[in-house]
Amino acid sequence: MGKKRDNETRRRIVAAAEELFRAKGLDGVNMRELAEMAGVNKGLLHYYFKTKDQLLDAVVAEKLVGEFIAFVAGELDRGQPEPLALVEHLVWRIVDASDAWPWLPPLWVREVISQGGALREKLIQRVDLGKPERFKAGIAAAQKAGRVNPEINPQLTFMSIMALTMLPLSMAKDWDRIPLIGRVSKPELGRHVVALLQHGLAAAPAKTQGRKA
Amino acid sequence: MGKKRDNETRRRIVAAAEELFRAKGLDGVNMRELAEMAGVNKGLLHYYFKTKDQLLDAVVAEKLVGEFIAFVAGELDRGQPEPLALVEHLVWRIVDASDAWPWLPPLWVREVISQGGALREKLIQRVDLGKPERFKAGIAAAQKAGRVNPEINPQLTFMSIMALTMLPLSMAKDWDRIPLIGRVSKPELGRHVVALLQHGLAAAPAKTQGRKA
Repeated sequence: MGKKRDNETRRRIVAAAEELFRAKGLDGVNMRELAEMAGVNKGLLHYYFKTKDQLLDAVVAEKLVGEFIAFVAGELDRGQPEPLALVEHLVWRIVDASDAWPWLPPLWVREVISQGGALREKLIQRVDLGKPERFKAGIAAAQKAGRVNPEINPQLTFMSIMALTMLPLSMAKDWDRIPLIGRVSKPELGRHVVALLQHGLAAAPAKTQGRKA
Repeated sequence: MGKKRDNETRRRIVAAAEELFRAKGLDGVNMRELAEMAGVNKGLLHYYFKTKDQLLDAVVAEKLVGEFIAFVAGELDRGQPEPLALVEHLVWRIVDASDAWPWLPPLWVREVISQGGALREKLIQRVDLGKPERFKAGIAAAQKAGRVNPEINPQLTFMSIMALTMLPLSMAKDWDRIPLIGRVSKPELGRHVVALLQHGLAAAPAKTQGRKA
């Protein structure tokens, strides 16, 4: 079969696997069902992916994480010279991503953050660390230049942005049932997180009591 | 049997159940194994808890969440008039709680935050909302008085504190293997979060671009 047809079949398998992973979780995916859904026979499926693990790798690398990271981290490449502006863009980018892929924040919490999550190891092996490293370096440089709060930790800043956004977004469809969140909208969450981070990261820190120095 | 003996047996069952839940997750707990571990026969176990669900309720209410919330939310009752000082205490309280109960943050992420988490519904039904409501009211009042950033959302502040602390703490034992966190310590995390929140919540907001107003 030709290269183009080949790619198209592979793409269809990965797309079907992604849909099944989303719907049933990683343990619920059955290779026979997947072949049926992708419209290929089991032999052809096996030609592309010998094991469920290989398939999972492909889904992780090519679909879920790849698209999401490309979407969010695209911001990191826009060459924003000002880290605070970059942080604001990142927050809105994550909020927008959760509209485009509403199943992603819960998947991220369940499979990446949770202990034993099936994707955590794969992410650690695959993620391109260049972008977060440049982000961290940008924060550290702005800190040295006196434009970012000297008490925050550049190493932890990206994780803080992810936590402030992805954790509440992972529960978005239940917000009105969760008393600690309540009736808020995604734009309200975004504005809150941006306000907290913009101000929290800005220079001239509030006085802290310096415990555990 | 006497009331005291009665309470002691029940306490022992709940403690054993807690230990099993921690070690094996909620689905891994077997009533026979539990009876053995608590040193009671199955009939006595049944006398106290007819179903695993009742047992889970007891563990949730009395142990895991009860102790953790009491430990953390004890701070909310100290009558701190200044929300920023209260926030700092809360952060350190959560960091300290993760030392006392290192299994709690991962359990919280897996069973409370994750979609379909077994404890989420029980928490929604049981949690005493008075304290977070008073916390929210305190933030809102300080906002009106011009002492707290007018752009943050008092309703979302408690969730933000939990996200900034519990999410990274849930992965604490793997930090040195997770590139986005790296070689940090819990005190470093605490200082970072306190600096971010103290400053982020303080009055006189940084200029944001007011997107999605």
